[in-house]
Amino acid sequence: MHTRKHIVAAARGDERMDTVIRKTQLVNVFTAEIYTADIGIKEDRFSAIARYENGKPLFNMEGDAEVDGTGKYAVPGFIDCHVHIESTMVTPDMFARALLQRGTTTAVIDPHEIGNVMGAEGVEYMINASRNLPVQILTTIPSSVPAVPGMETAGASFGPDDIDSLLDMPGVVGIAELMDYIGVIKQSDRMAGIVQKGLNKGVLNEGHLPRVTGRDLHAYLAAGVNSDHESRTPDEIIEKLRAGMLIYIRESSVSQFADIAAKAWEVVPHASNIAMCTDDVEPNDMQNNGQMNRVIQRCIEEGIPAPLAIRYASLNGAIRYSLSDRGAIAPGYIADFSLVNSLETMQIDDVFIQGDLMVKEGEVVVDIESSIPPLDKNTMRLPELTEEDFQIHSSVKDGMVTVNTMEMTDIGTTQKGTLELKVTEGHIETLPNDYVLVSVTGRHGQNRKPFVGVLRNAGLKKGAYATTVAHDSHNLVVAGTNARDMLLAAKRLEQSGGGLCLVEDGDVKAQINLPIAGLMAAEPIEELAPKIERFNEAAKSMGVQVGRRSPSMALSSLTLSVIPEIRITDLGLVDVTKQAFIPLIDSSY
Amino acid sequence: MHTRKHIVAAARGDERMDTVIRKTQLVNVFTAEIYTADIGIKEDRFSAIARYENGKPLFNMEGDAEVDGTGKYAVPGFIDCHVHIESTMVTPDMFARALLQRGTTTAVIDPHEIGNVMGAEGVEYMINASRNLPVQILTTIPSSVPAVPGMETAGASFGPDDIDSLLDMPGVVGIAELMDYIGVIKQSDRMAGIVQKGLNKGVLNEGHLPRVTGRDLHAYLAAGVNSDHESRTPDEIIEKLRAGMLIYIRESSVSQFADIAAKAWEVVPHASNIAMCTDDVEPNDMQNNGQMNRVIQRCIEEGIPAPLAIRYASLNGAIRYSLSDRGAIAPGYIADFSLVNSLETMQIDDVFIQGDLMVKEGEVVVDIESSIPPLDKNTMRLPELTEEDFQIHSSVKDGMVTVNTMEMTDIGTTQKGTLELKVTEGHIETLPNDYVLVSVTGRHGQNRKPFVGVLRNAGLKKGAYATTVAHDSHNLVVAGTNARDMLLAAKRLEQSGGGLCLVEDGDVKAQINLPIAGLMAAEPIEELAPKIERFNEAAKSMGVQVGRRSPSMALSSLTLSVIPEIRITDLGLVDVTKQAFIPLIDSSY
Repeated sequence: MHTRKHIVAAARGDERMDTVIRKTQLVNVFTAEIYTADIGIKEDRFSAIARYENGKPLFNMEGDAEVDGTGKYAVPGFIDCHVHIESTMVTPDMFARALLQRGTTTAVIDPHEIGNVMGAEGVEYMINASRNLPVQILTTIPSSVPAVPGMETAGASFGPDDIDSLLDMPGVVGIAELMDYIGVIKQSDRMAGIVQKGLNKGVLNEGHLPRVTGRDLHAYLAAGVNSDHESRTPDEIIEKLRAGMLIYIRESSVSQFADIAAKAWEVVPHASNIAMCTDDVEPNDMQNNGQMNRVIQRCIEEGIPAPLAIRYASLNGAIRYSLSDRGAIAPGYIADFSLVNSLETMQIDDVFIQGDLMVKEGEVVVDIESSIPPLDKNTMRLPELTEEDFQIHSSVKDGMVTVNTMEMTDIGTTQKGTLELKVTEGHIETLPNDYVLVSVTGRHGQNRKPFVGVLRNAGLKKGAYATTVAHDSHNLVVAGTNARDMLLAAKRLEQSGGGLCLVEDGDVKAQINLPIAGLMAAEPIEELAPKIERFNEAAKSMGVQVGRRSPSMALSSLTLSVIPEIRITDLGLVDVTKQAFIPLIDSSY
Repeated sequence: MHTRKHIVAAARGDERMDTVIRKTQLVNVFTAEIYTADIGIKEDRFSAIARYENGKPLFNMEGDAEVDGTGKYAVPGFIDCHVHIESTMVTPDMFARALLQRGTTTAVIDPHEIGNVMGAEGVEYMINASRNLPVQILTTIPSSVPAVPGMETAGASFGPDDIDSLLDMPGVVGIAELMDYIGVIKQSDRMAGIVQKGLNKGVLNEGHLPRVTGRDLHAYLAAGVNSDHESRTPDEIIEKLRAGMLIYIRESSVSQFADIAAKAWEVVPHASNIAMCTDDVEPNDMQNNGQMNRVIQRCIEEGIPAPLAIRYASLNGAIRYSLSDRGAIAPGYIADFSLVNSLETMQIDDVFIQGDLMVKEGEVVVDIESSIPPLDKNTMRLPELTEEDFQIHSSVKDGMVTVNTMEMTDIGTTQKGTLELKVTEGHIETLPNDYVLVSVTGRHGQNRKPFVGVLRNAGLKKGAYATTVAHDSHNLVVAGTNARDMLLAAKRLEQSGGGLCLVEDGDVKAQINLPIAGLMAAEPIEELAPKIERFNEAAKSMGVQVGRRSPSMALSSLTLSVIPEIRITDLGLVDVTKQAFIPLIDSSY
């Protein structure tokens, strides 16, 4: 353990600093000011900061290393209060590398996806692979494994006691987004039990409360769950702030809420209970648009004063997670910080971790590797599969049937539809234009044949598209125009341990290998992102088009049986509103 | 342990509230707003809050008890971040009673005075006597026992290991005001060792840094000590806020800083690192002027917006001490709060603790008593005393001597003076007008005769004045015009276990018994305060006059050998600036 001896000696002027950042624009998150300062760093901490008055620092510091901070802004390392590593599709070390490059130095992860695939083994892997990286990674234990019990089959199931055990692991700071808010509000045994475990351990119970206001909001808070990152209107944010909820402003690849947060801020500019998170950032989005720096940039663009936006992204997250020496540039704080050229773009130039330069002019200049190797285990436990398994079979031998279908909307939701189809010799031969087959195969050893349905508006005109990234149970989803290509795509992913695959006329057009739990690859974002871009090009050439979403995620939420109005799982078609299964073949005649 | 079942059920509307505060003006410390609301309380917590829109609550709640909050303000229970119970001269239960009546529901105490008298035994008594009272009392362990080693004799001495042991006691949240800031900045073994114990245990290291700015301020922060309540100018506050120090705005009986805090606030209105404390409130000041409610009232009067002032006094203190469910009126928070008629006066009407009404229209309506009895131990361990001991003796048998004197200034500081005195048969017979004898007798078993000096400007015209409240070692101080009265006063306090005593011509004119460590009485403020007033009247009639201070404290800081420029202890006259003893008799001729 460091003692403070040298850090203090350097502050009082009896020793040289290790590094002095000279004449930079300091973003002070305590006072919400920006002013010129010299920043003195000794060992792993900020030692002293000399503000400028009349063009000169209030006191002089000398450093073994000197960095010219002229024209740059010094900002504290960002704290991402809620993020799923799996969405970035890389292992924790590669994730940390990507965050570091973008100025995020602390991340509170929720290993929800791998938890649903591999249970405690997966969560433990994430925690262990996240230790001792330059980015401080803290963990919240997934509360929703499985997300919707009974409607789909996950690879594991966490009850209160399972979660309680995981809370004792190192770096665990809470229970992750309690999505079953109805269970919390109604105090179901399972959810009340989970929340109570968090209360008993004195860790945070993290919330997830889209569109809930009024007394249900208060009931959720009264239950002991007091954060949220799901508000969709300024009024919803304001009501939650007033109720004492900690609001994480979120900009993920899917949902962007900086604009509504800024509108809320105008009404309550002195609100103190605001922090930030990214939740889900896909590899190519990370590469193109950034991470926490993007959230901050958007908030500033929408009108939140820069020092406040940066406070939300740093100090307020530190306070939330009781990180008493992080989140600010001030004497005694851990020297995790960045230099940026512009608060308008929030492009990160240099990043220092515990006083050491780790990103220089945007490039990572250190090796980052987990102390344990990537999980070496193929999690694809599929049943025996044949072409027949990817066809729709009917008890009617010949005739017409009415089939319940899923129709994708432009905004990524689904509607229930129906389709009249001809049956020949017990199965359906062809689908009309705009319709494809869509299948979900349990990959967690369920040993059950694929459930096959009909999907409209996916855009796919030929071949097959398979993915093991399918929220939240991450079973194998294969869509296609023909069973032969679907089978091949499934087989390829079975062999590779999971990922994404496009097949056309018996040829693999593109494949992304995600061998760790079928969710992640052990490679840098800079390598994965271009592969995703190429995959997307191939998908588009096959017709895939899904509004604003990346084609790589086109099928990933079809299985999410909490988003209206119809979804598909390994167990069948789900009427989301009723939380009940509906038959594929509605009637025959 | 409460489960949340009923609290949540009441929030969602399936059960009645225990209490509803109807149509009150809610002070929302999260958003810094004030608006009309109904407050629903169930069991020990706030369950739901219904804001009014268009004259009606957003949802309806019914309560078994209903309280009309019209025209009143609902404010969270105040959190006093740094306070010495001993200054109020009553036991922890009586202290809690007084705070409760004034809306303070959490107090972080520093049992510094009793620690200097009784060591760990005293600190442990305070912690144990403070448990399970309606007011939540948390403890910081005194860091300065003794305050100034070598210059005076305290009843105990705490090194790093002693403090470390005490940190393990229940409700201990930190190490108290590290007054030896030079030791911290210079990293003396003792002070660096003490701070390191706090860092190792993950508790707070509380600061005390009057008039220190620039690199010494940064060195203190870098050392790991990051709060202060001693700033004396707006610029000093602003500099400390910028450096990331947590500033407690203080209004004590001795020092009032709301005005300068308000001036600082104008410069940095978005500063987030501000809380509040009272430090020392004497019984009659408490009775006449209040406690935390006075600090808030003064801040508002000086221009800080009321919701922010109240945030500093509640939520920000809760955040400082990681009290995650206190400091706000919001669902899920402990229902500690007050109703006040006016934000201008901050006179407290009703106070609720964990949902129960404990103060009604300003009167405490519950019994408050510690679960352990007051310490039954006379701590007055004096030597044998005679009249001779209170005279000044000289090695010169007959002739003139030059004596070094203490002269009290109008602002409570002291100056060194000299006085020519005639010696007859080895001792000094008479002192000129304005001069009295002043003695300090070790009362911690030092078994050493009183040290007797000469004091100017105390005002005392006749008789003797004795006190065992004498910072920080609390030895026995007796001032007087003659040795006979001085001896009697000393004897009276020896018998009573300590306190304050006025003697004139062999008669006791007034006496305050403080039998617990010579510092505290087990009686309510309402009883003690009038006694102090009567004592003060008697003291004034004997001529005592000490500027703004209460006559009851007239002699209490003469022994404080850290305040310039000359002080007296059981060991002799202290030149404060040099931290060296100076002889009483400078020369003889």
